Parts: sequence; C-alpha cells; structure tokens
Amino acid sequence: MSFLMIKEEEKGLVPCGIPYIFHDLGDVSKNMMGPAPFVAAGGEVLIDTVTEVSFKAKTLQTKSGLTFAYDKLVFATGSVPIVPTFIKGYDLEGVEYIRKSYEYIKALKQKTDLAKNIVIIGGGFIGVEVAEQLAKFTDKKVSLIEMQEYCLINAFSPRLTKLADTAVREQGVNLYTSAKVTEIIGQAGHVAGVKLADGTEIPAELVIQTIGYTPNTMLAGQSGLEMNSKLAILRDNYMRTAVKDVFAVGDCSESIGFVTGRPDNVMLASTATAEARILGYNLFKIGLIRTFSGTLSVFSTQIGSKVFASCGAIEQTAEAAGIEYISGEFEDWDRHPESLSDASKLWISLVVSPKTGVIIGGEIYGGKSAGEIINIISLAIQKGVTVYELVSYQIGTHPLLTTAPTKYVLIKAAEFAMSKIKLFGN
Amino acid sequence: MSFLMIKEEEKGLVPCGIPYIFHDLGDVSKNMMGPAPFVAAGGEVLIDTVTEVSFKAKTLQTKSGLTFAYDKLVFATGSVPIVPTFIKGYDLEGVEYIRKSYEYIKALKQKTDLAKNIVIIGGGFIGVEVAEQLAKFTDKKVSLIEMQEYCLINAFSPRLTKLADTAVREQGVNLYTSAKVTEIIGQAGHVAGVKLADGTEIPAELVIQTIGYTPNTMLAGQSGLEMNSKLAILRDNYMRTAVKDVFAVGDCSESIGFVTGRPDNVMLASTATAEARILGYNLFKIGLIRTFSGTLSVFSTQIGSKVFASCGAIEQTAEAAGIEYISGEFEDWDRHPESLSDASKLWISLVVSPKTGVIIGGEIYGGKSAGEIINIISLAIQKGVTVYELVSYQIGTHPLLTTAPTKYVLIKAAEFAMSKIKLFGN
Repeated sequence: MSFLMIKEEEKGLVPCGIPYIFHDLGDVSKNMMGPAPFVAAGGEVLIDTVTEVSFKAKTLQTKSGLTFAYDKLVFATGSVPIVPTFIKGYDLEGVEYIRKSYEYIKALKQKTDLAKNIVIIGGGFIGVEVAEQLAKFTDKKVSLIEMQEYCLINAFSPRLTKLADTAVREQGVNLYTSAKVTEIIGQAGHVAGVKLADGTEIPAELVIQTIGYTPNTMLAGQSGLEMNSKLAILRDNYMRTAVKDVFAVGDCSESIGFVTGRPDNVMLASTATAEARILGYNLFKIGLIRTFSGTLSVFSTQIGSKVFASCGAIEQTAEAAGIEYISGEFEDWDRHPESLSDASKLWISLVVSPKTGVIIGGEIYGGKSAGEIINIISLAIQKGVTVYELVSYQIGTHPLLTTAPTKYVLIKAAEFAMSKIKLFGN
Repeated sequence: MSFLMIKEEEKGLVPCGIPYIFHDLGDVSKNMMGPAPFVAAGGEVLIDTVTEVSFKAKTLQTKSGLTFAYDKLVFATGSVPIVPTFIKGYDLEGVEYIRKSYEYIKALKQKTDLAKNIVIIGGGFIGVEVAEQLAKFTDKKVSLIEMQEYCLINAFSPRLTKLADTAVREQGVNLYTSAKVTEIIGQAGHVAGVKLADGTEIPAELVIQTIGYTPNTMLAGQSGLEMNSKLAILRDNYMRTAVKDVFAVGDCSESIGFVTGRPDNVMLASTATAEARILGYNLFKIGLIRTFSGTLSVFSTQIGSKVFASCGAIEQTAEAAGIEYISGEFEDWDRHPESLSDASKLWISLVVSPKTGVIIGGEIYGGKSAGEIINIISLAIQKGVTVYELVSYQIGTHPLLTTAPTKYVLIKAAEFAMSKIKLFGN
C-alpha cells in the first residue's frame, strides 16, 4: 500500500499563522509546516499540479506529464481568495491577497515592510488579524474597511462585534465600518488608494483584499464531481463523494451545519483536520462511526490582549435558521481573587434551546483562557449537553488559572439560561 | 420562606487563594469572600456557633444562647487541619496550620513575615503552594518535608510528580522527600526546628503543618448523623442524609468516586460548590435529576510557571481500584507555530478503559491553558465520551491561543490511546 500527496509548492505555511508573519513572527520562515510527519509515516510527496482526472480509468495526470493510477482519490484542494473583479482597479499592481502560499506570502511580507499606507478590505478574521499585526508598526498607517456595521459579523453577536471594533481601533487601526469600496484608485498601473461610496479617499501604496475565500474546485468540477452553488464538493458524513473511491475534505468540500443540518460555508483549519481524521480512519471501510455529525464552527481570535471566541449557533445564526433560543450570560474574573495580577474579565454567553435545555452555541470574550473554554462549550454542544446537566458539572478551579468555583462562568451562564426556561423560572 | 446561615467568623477567605496571601496577594484582605451574594438574594447571616441540634424537635441552639426551629437543615461545616498529636512537639508555640479562618491566617501571615527559617510538613497541594509562595522571599529559607517519594502523589502519576518536585526545587524550596518527621524540636516552649527519621535536623522558627484535613463533624456526630470511618457524613446523590430534612454538603460529607463508585476522600472547593448547586436546586423536591453521579476530582495547580492538572482515574488510582486501563500520551506546544513568544510545551495523558474506549481520567502538564483543558477532559469523563468519539471532536484553534489543529493535544492523545486498543491496533 502506498500513499502519494501531490502538492503545488514544496514549502507549506501554518494557515492560521499567516497574519502573524507580518509582525509577531516577523518572517515567513517562522510559520512553516511541511509534510514531514506524512513522509515519516511512509507517505510520498510529489511537487506537481494535477491537470486531469479520469474517474472511469481511475487515473490522473500532472502538469509535468506524469500519469498515476489510484485506488482511492482524495480532493483536499482547499480554498482560494475571492478576487472581486467587479471592483474597478482590482487588477492594479499593489493589490494583494492572503494566499496560502509560501512564496506569495514571502513576497507580500516584503511589500508590507516597504509600504507606509496600507488598506485592508474586508473585516473578517483574516482582515482583522492582518490589520492588527500591521498596525503594530508605528510608522505605518493601516486602514481596514468593512461593508457591514461591525467586523467579524459572521462569527459573533453584536455585543461582541462592537467590542471587537473597539479593540481593533485601540490597536491603532483606522477602521471604516458600513463602508463600501467603489474603486481602487491607480496611478501608472500601481495602486494609489481606495475610494469609498461616501466619497472618502484613502491613500495607499498597498491594498490587501480579504473579502473571503472560495473552494478551489476547478479540477473537481472539470472531473465531474457534484458541487453545491458555492462550488463546494458534495460529500457525505465520511467525506465520500458520489463517485466511488473519491473523497473530498476541508475547504473544498461542502460542510453541513451541526445545529442546522444545512449547508454552511465554514472554512476552518480545525474543521478540516477533524474531517481529515474521519476520512483517514474510514478510507477503506467505515470502521469509526461518526457520532458528532455536521460541522461545528469554533472560532477564536485575539485582538490586542482581548480574546474573542464563539461556536455553534449564536443569536443571529439561530435567528436566521429559525431556531427558537434563549441565552444565559455571565461575567466574572478569570482568576480568583481578582486582585491577582494577571486577572482579566471573562464574559460568556450560552445559547440554549428553551424546550429541551440543549446547548446550541456560545460566545466568550476575555483573556487567553477563552481559547480553551470555547472547546468545553464545543464538546458540550457535540454531546448534546443540557443546561440542566451543566449546573451540576464538576470542574477544576485554581486561583491562578480559572474563575472561582462558586461562580465558574459556564455553570453560572447555564444557571441564568435555566432561569429563563419557564419550567424553572417563576 | 427564610434562609439563615450561621457561621463562626464574619469575614471569610477564598479557600484556594490562601497560599497566595503569603506572597502574590501580599495581604489577607486581598483574598476575602463573604456572604454578600447570599444576603443580596434575601438570606440572613448570623455570626455564632451551633452547639446542639435536635432532629426530633427540629431545633438548634447556639453558643450565644439562641434557639432556632428549622424546616430544612444543611450541614456545610467543612474540614479542619489534621493535628498530628502523635509527633513530639506538635503543641509547641510556632507550630501552625493552614486554617480556613480570616483572623488565624491574618496572624499567620505576620508570623511568616518575621520568620527566616520555615519548615512546612506535608507535600500535598496546600503544602506545595504555601512553600512555593514563601520561597519567593529570597531572605527566607523554606523547607518542605514529604513522607512519600514525591509531592502531590495522590493527584498525579509518577511522571508528573517528578516534574512537580523539580518545579518546587527550582522555586528555591529545600524539598525533602521520603522523609519522615520524628520530632518537632523546641526551645523554651517555642519551636526551634524539625528532626527527621534519618537524623537530619532543620532549624526553624516557624513550622506549618499541612498533612491533611479531616471533616469538621463533631456537631454532626453528637447530633446522631451517620458517618463513615473517615468521619464524613453519609449522604445520597442529592446531599440528603438518612435523617429527614437534614442535608450535608462539601468537605464534611462523604464523596463517592465518579469512576470507582466507592467512597473517596476528596475535599475541593470546586466539588463542594457543585454539590451545593445540586442541593440548592433539590432542597424541597428532587427536580433536577443528577446526570453526573459521583465525585470527580479535578485538580490543578501552578508551581513557578508550570501548571499541573489531573482529573478522574489516573494510573495509580485506576490500579488501586482494580480498573483495567490504557493510556494515550501526547506532547506539543500550546501555541502554533511554536516560534510565538509565549509558547510553552503541553503534555497530556488520557486514561482510557480499553474494552469500551471510555475516558476515565487525564493529566496535563504545561502552561496556563492546562487549567481549562482539564475541564474539557472532566466534561468528557462526566458524559462518558469515548476515544472513538474524541478523534472526530471538532475544536477551535488559534495560533495565539492553542495547539495546532493538526495535532490538538486531546485528539492526538485519544488517537494514541485508540492505537493501543487491540481492535484498532495492528
């Protein structure tokens, strides 16, 4: 048995680490990730591009002229930045993207080092994180433009997105919200600035577009795999496409929301790796029955010293999907007593189905521990834990590490949610 | 309806914060906790001591001569330090304890400030934490004496207790392990040092005994409540004693191990608060059926910059209880890429039932995030999560907050455990 991975570039990047190349890490070489563990496990790697696949012949061809036969074929082609060809000036020199490519990001890092005025278009996670990093250079003017009322609007409730905007501004980013880019202004073929719908012009030598990603499924489409309207490859719970022995995993494949049971558009490395594990264990026969069905988006990021995290159905996604919900909120210190020097406030919200008490989502705002507390909520959602259960959940607490046992944030939020359920309310 | 809390001292302390009074917090006033939330919710507080209870008459009497009738009576009398009367010199002046009393600890803080040579007897959590704090004063010589081969031997496997001992020594504590105190040496009625079984004499002006705690159940015993051989009050899953309308909760009551189903000796604020919530919801009628049965010890502490955490059945407790087990271990960085400046190593072990794959325990060693990751494991144990489930568990990761999604520690440890299960091994 042999395993071959065909990839376009030899060097790989830790995808979520890319924003930190621009400041905290300082260099693209500090954010590398390669197929070494795969090779160590006996896999082979070929640097090449697949140009054609025949499902009938079970073969594929590469750019360099090689032909391979396969028993099992996995599409893990990821996603690529959306290029807004509808915006005038999108093709000017100096208009860049955050591509998951070592050579590309290496070149982009040099460009950001030289630029003094940088505009970033799109206030999703990548836009916010890149802006936060670049703003740490005090000699750069960094502007971030978001079409919606707040940044990160797909991941957090308005309460947190407001705080996120504040945190972004406190980092020295010039944030424009409810702002639409109508044109990227050029001068002699090179970008000179960005023009907004209200007439504002922001000068820039460098524009980075972070408006979103689209599945990289050109080859899959040409090969005849079924795709959804967002061009994500259709697959089942075990990553199997409708074509025998052909699989799709990660950003290039369709994810189905854990709570809603309908397609969402989640592209997260953490989700992709969970899918990859499921695929790996079930490539030949389904041996490991999947008990956590569907995709649960678990988001976390840090802006300045503040951490924002969410998972599952938050208020507006529950609303949009027509899900009845209540929420329980609680705020406390992440150390006890709070007089300890590194204590910071921790705010938490649990979104709960009021008929059953099942936890369907959650959000956290606070210090670094939020990054793991969100994973407690994510496990609770995946296991269908109710607030009735969570109120007697036994936890570990320590003055230097957590909130106090008398008011552990998750338990208190569950209590507040429970008090809103009519059966337990007054 | 009225609620009355009778307590001996007006001011209360955050119990787990007590060790940090001696250095990090600096003063007892920084570690206060009182019944204010109880009073705000309509409760009344009486500073007094209950001297007699009649279950038949449903009344109780206090030291100050008051008599109260009750509908429901809760024993939440906690625990008191074990005083080793079998050790010569135990009653000398300058032999102290860690009592959960504001006035006592206030006085002890002053004594530690004056003392230059301090010996702490007993390397459990409290002994280790107090020693670590006192050793931060560079002008003090702090010695910690532990009878067993390593400190913290009831909470961690030998692998971690070895690291804990190293961490304790790195903090400047003179640690004596496998060392038995045979005598506390006195001079004119005041402590002058400690003598070990091997003849070593350690001079000291102050000796702090932290050899353990015993349930504070004198009153309960006199009242006729049934107790176990450790003098903990017997109670059921809803904190009800055998006497109608009489409850017992926390350190003074018997805890039953979650995994073993037999009495253990756990005294943790986090456990006590979980029990208190269960009691609170079920005081009049059992309305909130308990789904997490038994006591799950979740331990965490920090020595220097290193965090140690464990929960459920670890190797030696599984061994002692005759539980078949395997374990899966994994180590990685708690940030990704690890070149980020605050990255530290995170080591994790999951203890697993090999016939079912159910997770029964876990241990973590690493940075601060261990304090919340142990709560993911604790939820997994309480919900009977298997390693087969955990390998497809969807998590949130972020470079600045967690391990990489490709090798999230919990999932990798589950994978390694799974590989040891014969069905999935080779």
